[in-house]
Amino acid sequence: MTTSVAAYAAPAAKAPLERTTIERREVGAHDVLIDIKFAGICHSDIHQVREGWGEAIFPMVPGHEIAGIVTEVGSAVTRFEVGDRVGVGCMVDSCRECENCKAGQEQYCVQGNVPTYNGIGRDGEPTHGGYSQKIVVDENYVVRIPEGLPLDAAAPLLCAGITLYSPLKRFGAGPGKKVAIVGLGGLGHMGVKIAHALGAEVTVLSQSLRKKDDGLKLGADHYHATSDPKTFEELAGTFDLIVSTVSAPLDFGAYLSLLKTHGTLANVGAPEEPVSLNLFSVIGGGKSLAGSMIGGIAETQEMLDFCAAHGIGAEIELIAASEINEAYERVLASDVRYRFVIDTATI
Amino acid sequence: MTTSVAAYAAPAAKAPLERTTIERREVGAHDVLIDIKFAGICHSDIHQVREGWGEAIFPMVPGHEIAGIVTEVGSAVTRFEVGDRVGVGCMVDSCRECENCKAGQEQYCVQGNVPTYNGIGRDGEPTHGGYSQKIVVDENYVVRIPEGLPLDAAAPLLCAGITLYSPLKRFGAGPGKKVAIVGLGGLGHMGVKIAHALGAEVTVLSQSLRKKDDGLKLGADHYHATSDPKTFEELAGTFDLIVSTVSAPLDFGAYLSLLKTHGTLANVGAPEEPVSLNLFSVIGGGKSLAGSMIGGIAETQEMLDFCAAHGIGAEIELIAASEINEAYERVLASDVRYRFVIDTATI
Repeated sequence: MTTSVAAYAAPAAKAPLERTTIERREVGAHDVLIDIKFAGICHSDIHQVREGWGEAIFPMVPGHEIAGIVTEVGSAVTRFEVGDRVGVGCMVDSCRECENCKAGQEQYCVQGNVPTYNGIGRDGEPTHGGYSQKIVVDENYVVRIPEGLPLDAAAPLLCAGITLYSPLKRFGAGPGKKVAIVGLGGLGHMGVKIAHALGAEVTVLSQSLRKKDDGLKLGADHYHATSDPKTFEELAGTFDLIVSTVSAPLDFGAYLSLLKTHGTLANVGAPEEPVSLNLFSVIGGGKSLAGSMIGGIAETQEMLDFCAAHGIGAEIELIAASEINEAYERVLASDVRYRFVIDTATI
Repeated sequence: MTTSVAAYAAPAAKAPLERTTIERREVGAHDVLIDIKFAGICHSDIHQVREGWGEAIFPMVPGHEIAGIVTEVGSAVTRFEVGDRVGVGCMVDSCRECENCKAGQEQYCVQGNVPTYNGIGRDGEPTHGGYSQKIVVDENYVVRIPEGLPLDAAAPLLCAGITLYSPLKRFGAGPGKKVAIVGLGGLGHMGVKIAHALGAEVTVLSQSLRKKDDGLKLGADHYHATSDPKTFEELAGTFDLIVSTVSAPLDFGAYLSLLKTHGTLANVGAPEEPVSLNLFSVIGGGKSLAGSMIGGIAETQEMLDFCAAHGIGAEIELIAASEINEAYERVLASDVRYRFVIDTATI
């Protein structure tokens, strides 16, 4: 039997979100029912509501930064019990059989993973995300939020946290390494915290020095304005790793020039339009322009455990569901420090 | 006292090369005098003679694929003796003090390495390359050509060989890995041989199937024409590593789509103009677009030892010095299988 659940949805592309009711599927043998407590607002929620990434499915209940409590488990569930503190990120299923799924990189599932919302589940029904009071998810796509991590500050880790953690780990952020984070927004501020906790020397590269005090408090060792051309002179050849979180079309040649030999510029944000790149900017210095997309389920758990061990949560502004539309405008205006999180009790 | 040496030089930009005489510096304490036996013709020789890479120094004696015999050693030389079989590649000096030089990556010297020709040496004089009968080089920039490697087939290893060996090693070509080499020219044919010897499953991606028989003989397991759109459908998600040796502006998105998750497209050739790249082609799949430029001195020695152990030399067409200008035209027409090598006795 399905369950009726209060939610906030966009009824159509670009329309404001409004309160509605959705049906959650019956709790299957491998499912857990989660009482959602908090849901982060990710920039990609807005992209999808506004069809910036192509045609989308409406009505749409966004939200893939979900933190809550297990309230029911299916008969075959082994990993969770009622009362567990859990999270759900950007996907709720994948083929489980391809090379990537088997390697714990479900985000790159060859068949395409099932996104937490704006997707079609195995049951053929549209998926709906975290701006709602309950969700039913296969236990294999649920992670545990360790004690000590507040659920509200943990919610954004499910997307913003893992999106930064994965490339920072993969490309070797750690003691003795100089790491730059481009952009100090929802993603970037997690990058600063995580890179710092990993032991790297962290520099923020932001358009202006407006958020410099914040950046240093979050764990950055240095902070430079990219609007100042001197930044690119002074920092030439400095970094082992740069992670760019911005979706503006950067001058990639300029950012690549800030890398040391064999350095990597990893992009987790990206402009929608193609960029222009002179390949000599990677050939000289044997550099790499890489991409990274969220992370796998096991890696997401690893990230949560790492964050709990280092006392890392997102910096959040808790809002009521009625404030979602206003929050969207503020995200677009970069007026958030650093992540809006919806208290789903207010839906 | 300097030594007068017969050489072939371009007297001015774009001018045909002609026989001339140059002066080699006195053999210093750390220098070796090399009797050049063979010099390969690299596509970049032509680029530089024709100022395709910017203003150059004339007269220019090209050649950075040098194989010969030591005929004199300076008083402080410890690594070489008269009679040794040696090679000189793309550089004859570097600062020796920067992070890259200390790490054995002299090719990325922060001060800029001293190119074997079309550069300025420590003595303030223009450097001149291998299209000549003798050269004086600091022993630290000379490598040993193992017994068993014929000097003529070894010459191209000094640039083409190391240019391919370095990214193949760095990005993990080996047993169980699927590696594609884009372009079957002077660089590409070395890539096929080395990747095969490293134990990888090797695919050639060439514009047409014209050289297919050659490719398979050289060690490729598969050969596909990139002019056939089906190639990109069939091979989607196939390769761990693609090394592109071509300088034509590729559709990088299409080549990136041939990589597996976390795969790397390494470029050792590059178009002079910027290319267009949609960053989603690296974000989806966590892929990398990398560059690589020749290799360090120690790595060049490692490559020569590897090639000797596996019986790998370049496939060459030996020419007389008088044929250099004609050979240049044939290189530009891709009419060489696979490297012209000058018999410097004919200068």
